[in-house]
Amino acid sequence: MAKVGVVLSGCGVYDGSEIHEGVLTLYFLEKAGATTVMMAPNIDQAHVVNHLTGEVSKDEKRNVLAESARIARGNIKDIKSVRATEIDALIFPGGYGAAKNLCTFAFDGPDCKVNEDVARLTKDVYSLAKPIGAICIAPAMMARIFGDATPIELTIGTDKDTANAINIMGGRHISCTAANIVIDSKHKVVTTPAYMLPVSIAEAAEGIEKLVKAVMDLIKR
Amino acid sequence: MAKVGVVLSGCGVYDGSEIHEGVLTLYFLEKAGATTVMMAPNIDQAHVVNHLTGEVSKDEKRNVLAESARIARGNIKDIKSVRATEIDALIFPGGYGAAKNLCTFAFDGPDCKVNEDVARLTKDVYSLAKPIGAICIAPAMMARIFGDATPIELTIGTDKDTANAINIMGGRHISCTAANIVIDSKHKVVTTPAYMLPVSIAEAAEGIEKLVKAVMDLIKR
Repeated sequence: MAKVGVVLSGCGVYDGSEIHEGVLTLYFLEKAGATTVMMAPNIDQAHVVNHLTGEVSKDEKRNVLAESARIARGNIKDIKSVRATEIDALIFPGGYGAAKNLCTFAFDGPDCKVNEDVARLTKDVYSLAKPIGAICIAPAMMARIFGDATPIELTIGTDKDTANAINIMGGRHISCTAANIVIDSKHKVVTTPAYMLPVSIAEAAEGIEKLVKAVMDLIKR
Repeated sequence: MAKVGVVLSGCGVYDGSEIHEGVLTLYFLEKAGATTVMMAPNIDQAHVVNHLTGEVSKDEKRNVLAESARIARGNIKDIKSVRATEIDALIFPGGYGAAKNLCTFAFDGPDCKVNEDVARLTKDVYSLAKPIGAICIAPAMMARIFGDATPIELTIGTDKDTANAINIMGGRHISCTAANIVIDSKHKVVTTPAYMLPVSIAEAAEGIEKLVKAVMDLIKR
């Protein structure tokens, strides 16, 4: 039975993991016969956003691991403790948390830094020729981690500025709809835009289901 | 196109809406052709639980509407402003939030009180012969709202103490597995146990998908 790591980044689209993307990833992974290992870094969130008003709650602090545990129903590991040898693939749901907590792309664009445990695990999984899935804005982080030396074909949908930033970091951006995926077979990286495009939950789900299936297929090869 | 109200109670199984149940409800509703109106009461949570440790965060306060907005991606209404005439059905995902924030069942058992806007909207939806769905622990609240005068057949799974409490409040508890539902056709109330049983996300999803379909069928009648 395949064991797939799922990296969360908090709980809520504006300051953490996009919740629908996280839950649908877990759902389609189980339907595809995988077990999941949920994980997140044990660090403070970049900030807390009130999801009703859209405003930053200036005096509030939340921990990425503790908030991610809400999506994981408590069943979650500190990513620092996870080794690439214990999983068969790694998937990153999106949400601003992927670009604010796992890396600083939302603040620094192509000059962003990636959390060292996220970068270490991603590189190790890649080195072991295990597949990686990245949803929504998370593909931008893949471009930063791998850079020019390993130019990965990926998508964040159709946003030109983000696509440009990805190309600057060394990725190869390909436009894509939310119901579809981009598969880089050479590097075993699968991406889908999900809520990077103004879509409904069922449309985002279609791409996520395809991504999960493609990642599972790449495990088998 | 059917318009279905979804009542959230925060964001996280131990102090709010069970996130998987909330997201899967939205997903299956859209797949079934419905639009959704997400809502929650604008009140403080009963408390905040750290989902990593399971402990109550004593000094922390969170608002039910603002936290529910995380699941709703900001697209949510104060339940106080919602009228039964503007929706075709009403669904309550579970999680402790349904038993701590929407009513006090988790603290007071059969003597619990129900949030007045939740009780008002539920009764009005029922009066208009529109169907109601309740998932996980949320059915207990239905027993309290309708009482002996309107004995509703419902399920929270197989837990004897909770089933007893439901019968004391005037409900008629029926045992059920997570992949199945109980339909009270007379009162147009559909229930499923979901995570009241120790199940996986795909098993919970099976019951929730059936519940959504049954609620949609009851709208059409």
